[in-house]
Amino acid sequence: MTTRAIKMGKLDLGGGAPPAVQTMCDTDTRDAEATLAQIARCAEAGADIVRVAVPDSRAALALERIAAESPVPVVADVHFDWRLAARALRAGASGVRVNPGNIGGPAKLMRVVEECARSGACLRVGVNAGSLDPEMARRLGRGPEAMCESALQETRLVEDSGFRNYKVSLKASGVLDTVAAARLFAKASDVPQHLGVTEAGPLVQGIAKSAVALGILLSEGVGDTVRVSLTAPPEAEVEAASEILRALGLRARGVEYVSCPTCGRCRIDLPKLLEDVRARLSDVKAPLRVAVMGCVVNGPGEAREADVGVAGGLRRGRLFMRGSPVADLPYSRLAQALEELARKVIRERGEEGGKA
Amino acid sequence: MTTRAIKMGKLDLGGGAPPAVQTMCDTDTRDAEATLAQIARCAEAGADIVRVAVPDSRAALALERIAAESPVPVVADVHFDWRLAARALRAGASGVRVNPGNIGGPAKLMRVVEECARSGACLRVGVNAGSLDPEMARRLGRGPEAMCESALQETRLVEDSGFRNYKVSLKASGVLDTVAAARLFAKASDVPQHLGVTEAGPLVQGIAKSAVALGILLSEGVGDTVRVSLTAPPEAEVEAASEILRALGLRARGVEYVSCPTCGRCRIDLPKLLEDVRARLSDVKAPLRVAVMGCVVNGPGEAREADVGVAGGLRRGRLFMRGSPVADLPYSRLAQALEELARKVIRERGEEGGKA
Repeated sequence: MTTRAIKMGKLDLGGGAPPAVQTMCDTDTRDAEATLAQIARCAEAGADIVRVAVPDSRAALALERIAAESPVPVVADVHFDWRLAARALRAGASGVRVNPGNIGGPAKLMRVVEECARSGACLRVGVNAGSLDPEMARRLGRGPEAMCESALQETRLVEDSGFRNYKVSLKASGVLDTVAAARLFAKASDVPQHLGVTEAGPLVQGIAKSAVALGILLSEGVGDTVRVSLTAPPEAEVEAASEILRALGLRARGVEYVSCPTCGRCRIDLPKLLEDVRARLSDVKAPLRVAVMGCVVNGPGEAREADVGVAGGLRRGRLFMRGSPVADLPYSRLAQALEELARKVIRERGEEGGKA
Repeated sequence: MTTRAIKMGKLDLGGGAPPAVQTMCDTDTRDAEATLAQIARCAEAGADIVRVAVPDSRAALALERIAAESPVPVVADVHFDWRLAARALRAGASGVRVNPGNIGGPAKLMRVVEECARSGACLRVGVNAGSLDPEMARRLGRGPEAMCESALQETRLVEDSGFRNYKVSLKASGVLDTVAAARLFAKASDVPQHLGVTEAGPLVQGIAKSAVALGILLSEGVGDTVRVSLTAPPEAEVEAASEILRALGLRARGVEYVSCPTCGRCRIDLPKLLEDVRARLSDVKAPLRVAVMGCVVNGPGEAREADVGVAGGLRRGRLFMRGSPVADLPYSRLAQALEELARKVIRERGEEGGKA
């Protein structure tokens, strides 16, 4: 079932729009300069939405400049005090996220809804297994059913007010609970969902957990915007989220690398070659498939399927473009030659990133 | 449908056994010393099976020592020359992997099958989109149908010989093709499957692609052993694969961290605290859930769900054990205190890793 279409600033969410990538700044929001610099890096990496914590009035005030200068919609993350949400919205935030488990009850949630309606902002009602309404937790526990029931209860409240421009999230730190809760909610409601595994942990574990959960849900058509939550810089979250979407055919931006893990057959320094090529092509936004392969077993085959590629031999490599070998070169010249080939393909397509 | 049960050395595969994690050495197999050291590190990280490339006779010969001293079953990866597979098996390999697209035709594949039957080894028939049999590729292309048909054609050959102790893999570098091919094969055959996205690429992209593909398939009950293929050391592949299995509730070994991404609310150096705690608990094999949280919003809730945890405040933190707060300590003492608490919990359960 397709969710309803909603708006976050100029960005379309839900209603079949491609899933949007979001992240959250780890800067002090009161430091507008540092926060804007981080938002710019995240947007460059592919973030469609950036969230900032608003723990006090000074942070809400700093949003005036942040929201005005940010290249992407800014969402205020508010807990405990609904008035901070109101201040953030009046300062120009395109959205606000509140947690019904700690905002102080339905009346206060409705004050936030009124402020969103007044400013045309998008609301997220963020249900979290770790901070469920105590009454709900007593009655239904902290599993998927309790999370879904809690989210549905909040949506009934919001719907009653006539406000429609909102989404929900149902986050748990366990993958199976996250998947089950999101599926339950998607069956019961057309309200768009923000997906994420909360407190997913350090880099490798966090990406693995998030990709499993988001992969299962997005492949079933559930999820309108995603966040990969990592104990790592927000730029890494954006990269991981973008790769998850690309793996599912839901995002095509930038270079996809097909590169082999290397084994006892590899006779060139492949990780170094890959790093060199990635650094050279880091500015490319056009969709491009680049193969960097160590040997002749899978190398030519995979290089053939890519837009451009290289397959290593003994201290040399063979370059491919759109399936055809174009040159044999010594190792030291491979990275630059592959970059030139890649930019040629992009230029010929008339896309950005094809500078000579 | 449950796959048939097969054996790799003493390891059970298929037939409902938990999915086994495997990786592949990037050492020169002829250097038995270096290869055994890497196998030991991979086994310590959680690998159940390790594969090594056998590109020539000297590599096959080196397997005598490698197979004898490895703590886990060793699989020989062979291309082009079936006699190398025979030599590797006679040297003691527990399994061999051949690619029907390049081993030289059905008669040579059958020679490998005979050698496996003779030595009690496990065979993997590894179909790869990049090196499909040219005739098959001409007829059906290189998509999921061609991959599945190619795998089924090989299984018919092997079954006709009466040999049963084998598995297949159907690998593509695209996630959606990998998922579709594995699903098709699982519907058509009870032969166990080795899952993996081939040439998945650099760390973040590679984990994301692998976790999406393996997450979808394993959650549907497809897959008996997995490899995460990364352009990164094999130990990282093992960590990523283990995390994917754990996310799905299919592996419980070692510490799971619940740690937050930090935001403008965090007032302690959380990444540093997390790194310190991870280093202290790196030897723990017993299943344990440890929360390392930056603030009071989700902190106490998540710390409550974990075996042990810490929730940060202003330069201090509160420790939790099985849901109850046990101490408030300054930042500098948190890591050590959390380690002590974790080992206490493990000791009380009578599990390994609880040294005082």
